[in-house]
Amino acid sequence: MLAHWLIEKKRDGGTLSKEEIKFLIDGYTSGAIPDSQMSALSMAIFFKGMDLEETANLTEAMAGSGDMLYLPGVRKPKADKHSTGGIGDKVSLVLAPLLAGCGVAVPMISGRGLGITGGTLDKLEAIPGYRTNLSEKEIQAAISSCGCCITGQTPQLAPADRKLYALRDITATVPSMPLIVSSILCKKVAEGIDSLVLDIKVGKGAFMQTVPEAEQLGATMAAVAQRLGKKLSVFLTDMDQPLGRMAGNGLEVEESINCLRGVAEADLLELTLEFGIEALRLCRIEQDREAAKNLLIGKIRSGEALEIFSQMVKIQGGYPRITEDLDRLPRAKLRRALRATQSGWLSQVDAGKIGRACVLLGAGRSKPGEKVDPAAGVSRLLKVGEEVRTGDLLLEAHAGSEGKLNEAWPWLESAFSYTPERGTIPALIKQRRLWTEESGKNT
Amino acid sequence: MLAHWLIEKKRDGGTLSKEEIKFLIDGYTSGAIPDSQMSALSMAIFFKGMDLEETANLTEAMAGSGDMLYLPGVRKPKADKHSTGGIGDKVSLVLAPLLAGCGVAVPMISGRGLGITGGTLDKLEAIPGYRTNLSEKEIQAAISSCGCCITGQTPQLAPADRKLYALRDITATVPSMPLIVSSILCKKVAEGIDSLVLDIKVGKGAFMQTVPEAEQLGATMAAVAQRLGKKLSVFLTDMDQPLGRMAGNGLEVEESINCLRGVAEADLLELTLEFGIEALRLCRIEQDREAAKNLLIGKIRSGEALEIFSQMVKIQGGYPRITEDLDRLPRAKLRRALRATQSGWLSQVDAGKIGRACVLLGAGRSKPGEKVDPAAGVSRLLKVGEEVRTGDLLLEAHAGSEGKLNEAWPWLESAFSYTPERGTIPALIKQRRLWTEESGKNT
Repeated sequence: MLAHWLIEKKRDGGTLSKEEIKFLIDGYTSGAIPDSQMSALSMAIFFKGMDLEETANLTEAMAGSGDMLYLPGVRKPKADKHSTGGIGDKVSLVLAPLLAGCGVAVPMISGRGLGITGGTLDKLEAIPGYRTNLSEKEIQAAISSCGCCITGQTPQLAPADRKLYALRDITATVPSMPLIVSSILCKKVAEGIDSLVLDIKVGKGAFMQTVPEAEQLGATMAAVAQRLGKKLSVFLTDMDQPLGRMAGNGLEVEESINCLRGVAEADLLELTLEFGIEALRLCRIEQDREAAKNLLIGKIRSGEALEIFSQMVKIQGGYPRITEDLDRLPRAKLRRALRATQSGWLSQVDAGKIGRACVLLGAGRSKPGEKVDPAAGVSRLLKVGEEVRTGDLLLEAHAGSEGKLNEAWPWLESAFSYTPERGTIPALIKQRRLWTEESGKNT
Repeated sequence: MLAHWLIEKKRDGGTLSKEEIKFLIDGYTSGAIPDSQMSALSMAIFFKGMDLEETANLTEAMAGSGDMLYLPGVRKPKADKHSTGGIGDKVSLVLAPLLAGCGVAVPMISGRGLGITGGTLDKLEAIPGYRTNLSEKEIQAAISSCGCCITGQTPQLAPADRKLYALRDITATVPSMPLIVSSILCKKVAEGIDSLVLDIKVGKGAFMQTVPEAEQLGATMAAVAQRLGKKLSVFLTDMDQPLGRMAGNGLEVEESINCLRGVAEADLLELTLEFGIEALRLCRIEQDREAAKNLLIGKIRSGEALEIFSQMVKIQGGYPRITEDLDRLPRAKLRRALRATQSGWLSQVDAGKIGRACVLLGAGRSKPGEKVDPAAGVSRLLKVGEEVRTGDLLLEAHAGSEGKLNEAWPWLESAFSYTPERGTIPALIKQRRLWTEESGKNT
């Protein structure tokens, strides 16, 4: 077998076999197959695609390129939630300890932000001392002790994916369905989980701008997960406006802690509960939606979920009393208020523009490896459907310098649109594609 | 400008500007743009193509990636002949000294064989001592002294092309029209020639298997050459059967020397004269075809062309008396005769199969960098249209071992087809697309 011939086969529209895909991924991981061949192959895949069988085989080969996470002695069901990324999307921070409180093991492997999309690891690193580079042993210890962790990909976990993703990033081969699907799923397979809730963000602040694109991703993910024997439920959720009222790393930790304390924004709580209910169903902990919801809310009311969050922070090296001492979160030197220029109802709060503004404020990165400012971002954000009068606060921007505030300002100003009359509020959850016990697949 | 964005632009069917192409090629040459980006770009070009303007700009950028060959004091017209490669194609060895004898400067930069296609450099290296790595100074000296040289690409000549070709070879991006055209032409532009005769081989032993493909290559080459201000005439010639009666490096040197001595195979002489006549016309040395032909034949009859060949060999470090001492060419340890299994007329002598057999005999390489056996090959080859009786010699195979002969044998045996009646002999020259003075282009 020669990599060259396999590239040619894909280039000419052929189907790669399981063995051929494994040969390519193993060779790429070991360095026997150079970047140049892998990028040519990726571009051929961009043009010619891969069928579901090939995508499943690619996912398995990438998951198998390193260690599989092994959780000996953990008899609990294992689940995870993955989001395709958006602005202000802090659900993972709330959901992981909440599910852990309900008896689910949640070994959550997350990523960093790039472009307008925030990253869960960047958010948690706003907590003084929090480490996102747990070893496999440390992940095992965290799961045994508090039931969850949120950490980065270890060097041994799906190394082919890490290498391939960095390559795709510089070779214009990111937007390819089989490459996207296999990249997301291989890490989940390597995590060793049984069930996954997938949140596909759709809209101005998301990778997927339209429902049909997002539907296609969801359908492909479901079909591939089924082939790999994983339970997967897919949600398409709104990302035309940011989630919650804060965006930016430290600010989102604050909003998450508030949510765990019972002081939650409606949309953040709605998604958290929705995904939590589905995860409990997939994990066969609670089939009844109402009962599941009560179970989850009970864990917030009792303070258990907050306590688990605090334990997780402690285990990961962070300041555990952060949950009662929010002032230890980083605070920006400067704040500036954005005020309504007219009266009416907000008809749009453009998540794409808010996201761009957050990058300019210092909260995000435009290139991999750049540092982020944990204190930067926006807070007190008004939402679509809210009524304002001229001069009302629309948001507060946080940054380290006037220059950054000035750079971000045009994006923030132009993010808001008004209507003279109360409009309809778009649905937060646009579609559900839930796994069923009977068919063993998504419907 | 970021390479990533330009790959994306081409991927999405955009047109790259002259500046963008120069940025990519200069960056690739200097190492600022890695192989991985260039191979992704090449694959995007494979799928989306390049228009004539882009191809011309790519050609110029690659030609300009290193030194241009400078021939100070040479007031003669400068011309070259390029073939897309075939089996037994030794025209360059005869034509270069012949044109030099007629007052043309011929700084011929040739390549090595790969796969079934032979390489001019490999052939000449069968001459003891012959060096194919002349420096620019040595090329200048050769042109000044005998009017021609046949040597390899210098490290300074179109380095982007050498790098890109090696990359395309392992990334399944060789068969792309704009990449093929620019790779051929950039070296000719860097040679500093005014006129080029292009021989596009068509048939079983050629890269182009059909006339329409070859026509498209010819048309593209002509249009791009015109944009670059070069005179180009294109011939489509038959490669369903090998050219001449010998294939293999040392054997082809022998046949070339014989041709220069006036003992020529008809097809080899026909192509040599045809290309020679056209080169003399392009160089404005002789416009009349009959007069040009007589001039060329005269240089063979007088022994001048052979003498120039001998001088060239000497200048390039080779044994100059090779022209009268053919026994100094390498001889294979073993020879084996292939004989006709039936009587009739030969209707096919499959150049593809003979070419594969030659690789197996040791005359060719299946990977770049492999050594070739200068003595291996086939001789005394019968041709399409010749009459045979059972038991007649069809060819003699030369190799270093019985194992090699055995490996090649099935390919040799199956290369010959017979008809019971005298058939028609296919035309050697299938098409001409000649440059005209009036239009300044090909018609």
